[in-house]
Amino acid sequence: MGRNTRGVVLKRFNGNRSWVKVCAMMAIVGTLAATNLRAQQQSLPTLNVMPLPANAQPGSGELAVDAKFSVALTGYSEARLERAVQRFRRQLARETGLVLPQESETALKSSTAKTAATATLIVHTAHASQAIQELGEDESYTLEISSSGAKLDAETSLGTMHGLQTFLQLVAVTPQGFAAPAVTIQDKPRFPWRGMMIDSARHFMPMDVLKRNLDGMEAVKMNVLHWHLSENQGFRVESKKFPKLQEMGSDGLYYTQEEVRELIEYARDRGIRVVPEFDVPGHSTAWLVGYPELASGSGPYEIERRWGVFDPAFDPTNEKTYKFLNEFFGEMTKLFPDHFFHVGGDEVNGKEWDANPKIQAFMHANGLKNNEALQSYFNKKLQAIVAKHGKSMVGWDEVLAPDAPHDIVIQSWRGQASLAAAAKQGFRGILSNGYYLDLGWSAQRHYAVDPLSGAAADLSPEEKLRILGGESCMWSEYVNTENVDSRIWPRNAAIAERLWSPQNTTDVPSMYARMDAESARLEWLGLTHKTYYRQMLQRIAGHSATPQEFAALHALADVVEPVKDYAREQLAPSEPTSATPLHRVVDAVSLESDEARRFGALVDKYLAASCKDDEAGTALRAELVRWRDNDPALESLAQKSFLVREVVPVSQSLAALGKIGVSAMDYLILGTQAQPEWKTDQLAALTELAKPKAQLLLIPVSSVQKLVEAASGGATCSAK
Amino acid sequence: MGRNTRGVVLKRFNGNRSWVKVCAMMAIVGTLAATNLRAQQQSLPTLNVMPLPANAQPGSGELAVDAKFSVALTGYSEARLERAVQRFRRQLARETGLVLPQESETALKSSTAKTAATATLIVHTAHASQAIQELGEDESYTLEISSSGAKLDAETSLGTMHGLQTFLQLVAVTPQGFAAPAVTIQDKPRFPWRGMMIDSARHFMPMDVLKRNLDGMEAVKMNVLHWHLSENQGFRVESKKFPKLQEMGSDGLYYTQEEVRELIEYARDRGIRVVPEFDVPGHSTAWLVGYPELASGSGPYEIERRWGVFDPAFDPTNEKTYKFLNEFFGEMTKLFPDHFFHVGGDEVNGKEWDANPKIQAFMHANGLKNNEALQSYFNKKLQAIVAKHGKSMVGWDEVLAPDAPHDIVIQSWRGQASLAAAAKQGFRGILSNGYYLDLGWSAQRHYAVDPLSGAAADLSPEEKLRILGGESCMWSEYVNTENVDSRIWPRNAAIAERLWSPQNTTDVPSMYARMDAESARLEWLGLTHKTYYRQMLQRIAGHSATPQEFAALHALADVVEPVKDYAREQLAPSEPTSATPLHRVVDAVSLESDEARRFGALVDKYLAASCKDDEAGTALRAELVRWRDNDPALESLAQKSFLVREVVPVSQSLAALGKIGVSAMDYLILGTQAQPEWKTDQLAALTELAKPKAQLLLIPVSSVQKLVEAASGGATCSAK
Repeated sequence: MGRNTRGVVLKRFNGNRSWVKVCAMMAIVGTLAATNLRAQQQSLPTLNVMPLPANAQPGSGELAVDAKFSVALTGYSEARLERAVQRFRRQLARETGLVLPQESETALKSSTAKTAATATLIVHTAHASQAIQELGEDESYTLEISSSGAKLDAETSLGTMHGLQTFLQLVAVTPQGFAAPAVTIQDKPRFPWRGMMIDSARHFMPMDVLKRNLDGMEAVKMNVLHWHLSENQGFRVESKKFPKLQEMGSDGLYYTQEEVRELIEYARDRGIRVVPEFDVPGHSTAWLVGYPELASGSGPYEIERRWGVFDPAFDPTNEKTYKFLNEFFGEMTKLFPDHFFHVGGDEVNGKEWDANPKIQAFMHANGLKNNEALQSYFNKKLQAIVAKHGKSMVGWDEVLAPDAPHDIVIQSWRGQASLAAAAKQGFRGILSNGYYLDLGWSAQRHYAVDPLSGAAADLSPEEKLRILGGESCMWSEYVNTENVDSRIWPRNAAIAERLWSPQNTTDVPSMYARMDAESARLEWLGLTHKTYYRQMLQRIAGHSATPQEFAALHALADVVEPVKDYAREQLAPSEPTSATPLHRVVDAVSLESDEARRFGALVDKYLAASCKDDEAGTALRAELVRWRDNDPALESLAQKSFLVREVVPVSQSLAALGKIGVSAMDYLILGTQAQPEWKTDQLAALTELAKPKAQLLLIPVSSVQKLVEAASGGATCSAK
Repeated sequence: MGRNTRGVVLKRFNGNRSWVKVCAMMAIVGTLAATNLRAQQQSLPTLNVMPLPANAQPGSGELAVDAKFSVALTGYSEARLERAVQRFRRQLARETGLVLPQESETALKSSTAKTAATATLIVHTAHASQAIQELGEDESYTLEISSSGAKLDAETSLGTMHGLQTFLQLVAVTPQGFAAPAVTIQDKPRFPWRGMMIDSARHFMPMDVLKRNLDGMEAVKMNVLHWHLSENQGFRVESKKFPKLQEMGSDGLYYTQEEVRELIEYARDRGIRVVPEFDVPGHSTAWLVGYPELASGSGPYEIERRWGVFDPAFDPTNEKTYKFLNEFFGEMTKLFPDHFFHVGGDEVNGKEWDANPKIQAFMHANGLKNNEALQSYFNKKLQAIVAKHGKSMVGWDEVLAPDAPHDIVIQSWRGQASLAAAAKQGFRGILSNGYYLDLGWSAQRHYAVDPLSGAAADLSPEEKLRILGGESCMWSEYVNTENVDSRIWPRNAAIAERLWSPQNTTDVPSMYARMDAESARLEWLGLTHKTYYRQMLQRIAGHSATPQEFAALHALADVVEPVKDYAREQLAPSEPTSATPLHRVVDAVSLESDEARRFGALVDKYLAASCKDDEAGTALRAELVRWRDNDPALESLAQKSFLVREVVPVSQSLAALGKIGVSAMDYLILGTQAQPEWKTDQLAALTELAKPKAQLLLIPVSSVQKLVEAASGGATCSAK
């Protein structure tokens, strides 16, 4: 999968691979997507629901939500739905602070029969969903809310659960109390596969981290957890047949089979399938620590501590490899009930194959011309094993070969063109290119990525159906339990909306407004994306920071973001490993700065009003003054903390940026025009300020540049 | 136990009780304690440890704390110590963000033997503490930290655990990395009973709430959890002998016996005893729902939903009562291993006794002149039951009678005089008067309460030993899982210090500086006192709040506190019950405003410098301007949220306060003197602003008053 789009890999592995081109393309897309946010102040959210429903008709009035709020389940029922209602009530209580009486399971059952007619929210489920959740089941629902009550109807339990989430999102504080607006919603997903991949292998993710992220996925109607469970850096599941996998390959950090079952049940309760990934034949150092006899090299192997693509790979010419994988997959396909089984298959660098005479002899004897052919040979045998155990194989782009069985599913880190080509050959696919959460793209940029755009737009309707959806990916080189939530949320909600809502749902300001609201709601589910930011900043500042010093650090951190894509490796002061602490400013700050986004929107609003919006002008200048004057307190704190000292250059840049911005605002407010030399000097300075420092980018540079250009006659402002 | 100092009780029950006097005294103490904070800028913390150690000698240099940090256990060892070290390492990793390799229990054991000589921190424990932790065990330790390593020595495991907490507090970020300063500490507690009472009965407190608060108690070296488990509003422990207690008396919210055992084990792991309280014969409605035949009234009974003191009481003349209590206490004294067993015994209003002819006849026949005599009769029989089960009885002041056995312990909500009188009669006691966390006192005010002050100061050394220590009390009428942490922390740390540190540890600015640091540390233990504040404010503001509107709400909330003592009941818009939502501003804001405290300290600093500290003057004026101009955004938000609308009058007060303060600052900065009429007008206005609104107090009023007085010639400033 796509670790290979990384700079660090580029440096280490100069093979002739298509990802070099992909990198270049991605950079261009990035530039395009980063164009101005002018649209941002044009519209407000019509309905505070994310993902936006397929169809919504506003009604008049609102439904009061108070302590008497009740839910009745009618039609088909099951324990899972009762749990969903209890969860719904708990979450409603959290989001409103209302004291909703506890309903025990028994009480719920008896009350539903009795009180169906009088309940505030009457739920009707037509029939059960599959015992083992399947791709493409009916997830639709309709929700009607009026001032006197609400009705939720769904074909299956899956739709019911989605509808309950929609209702929760609609509840808001009003001048009269809590209420949900009157509305009629008919909703269903655009794609049947709406996933998130979590890499539990590079940094281990404890159960509570996974559970709260499953809660978040449920809230935004994602329905697949792709669980990346093995890597060079760790093997994370207990195997009873091959216990050396976890005993020697995990540093003791793995999920027991009982925990795996618990998580699958937890996910199923939320309408989420769990697809495990066991990555072979590469990305497999941690397996080979305990079973070096299956490797292509001579071993011994140790758990990898660095990041990147490494040499160790299974020996595809050794029948023992297939015997092992057959038995191991046999165990795992029983443990994971989902119909799909992910085998990775990406990024074999081939060095161990090249260096092993036995493998070379085998290739020669079997007419396998190169490593790609050898991997194809491997994949074919692998697919047969997976199929034998009753599953469909999923793999990254590399597993695709023209003669592969059409049963397999391609997960594409390469992009829509790759998916489209596969679809034409009859293969199903899911898109992940453009949905890598770890690359630090803005929500807007992810939002612009559509599985059916580009080459995929030209597919026939039948071919389009083969594009099942997409998956966001949370690779975990630079995330741990503290900051993983903030790397996933709230941006993941924008991807979830892309995969659920109609294709023409593209209003960016509406998306951001609803994402901000959802971000606050997610906190009541236990997600820590906001909480840990402040705590991590406090750790960086230390206990002896004064309130002013801490405020200075906060102000700086609010407007910077980590460098994008794979620049983090390239700019690392020393080679990062799994032992590298993630406690620096770059680890704490958001991947998308809300402050910078709002500042940019205000600049656009000001310029769009030809600088005649005095309120905006005053607010902008005040913010720029704050940045200009922020450095002394930051530098004072830097005397006390090495973690603050690192960002002094960034702080100095912010001060310089503030100074430039204040000058520009003074021209604009006075209505005088700056001289060309002034403009030249400021733009040159801004170019310097835009360069990364301490692996951080100062985000408002581009907005200040607009002010500089306007002040120099680039806008209609000097005519004021 | 002291619910009776409440205004609401005053309204309902005009009996002839000593608490009327107590209320008056408390009001006076409050006024005295609220005098100015001028001392606050005089000193800095010598050592960032809370509670401050009995003896600490600073060394030179510091001990680097990095990923190679290791701990060796030598001398006596046990599984509990190994868990303590693992917890220590986990907490160290959290507070520094360092990646400390996981040490499995086996690895820890083997490594400790091997690496004792080379470990960074070498721990030596002389011998075991008691299997069931006892009052007065040796809790001392010495901790020596030099630039080359650290040694922790303790007589028992209890001292070792305390020393580990001290080490954790010493670790700080420095210009070079994380480090602990060189120091030699010899430490031991002043009092053997340093407790906190948590009321799990009025609002149920789930296990995770209790556990994280036990973590907090361990951090500040408290050693008793007094667990208030029964009330009119709920009976919270599973009884297997009398299951109707929890089945009919808890709304399903109770601890199973397994959970109780788990919590006791969790506490023991942290050197904390667990003393249960089952309150009889009053405060017992929830018991009598299932067992009305034991009541003095005729029943039937229902779980009480209101707050206050109520009529239901056990029938002390019915032998069935003693049979029941004997069997029930027999079950509970087995479940709770601690030697002390709390029976409450407070606040019987006597109405059911007065109204029951059978009871009146019994009193007459047995020469019991009044209800006090009847309760004495009950207590004597109760004490015999408790003693029969091998325990010492603890009760609130009311259980004291001159002929009671000296084995009992008095917990005093009345005060030091009451304790001193008891000590002279040979009774042991613990102080809770002055430590009620729910009354909203400042940390400084709690800190000033000493168990051995007042009448207790004159006791003989032998009598003084009978005063075992104290307990903070968290009564839970107005706390739930969201805000309970913020009602306990960080102020509880000041009480913990009073009970641990030498009596002459009274430097308030040092206490606040260390408390602020400890408050940040406690977050890494999972306490939510800061987290929920922001989340609750976000709920109050709603999803449609703009950043400016939210900032306005935050700014207002930062400088208000709930009304003090029992004013909340008196000022309640309608009678509060257990179904009343705790989602208002009064529920979210801190009980002690950090912002107001800092503002007050800055005012004092400015005035102490005869208004010549221009930096302070500028900062004060800027803050006052911010308050003056805060209201429009708040009022805009109030249009959207009923929870914000409630605090509009407070916001208007803040604006008026800011305006007055700015005027005063303008006089002071210009060095001109205001006219007497101006002063009169402003003081009159301030008197109005000091009045509670929406059950909130605007805290900086008294500091602004100082500025007004100074501006009118009350200080040396106009001579500038």
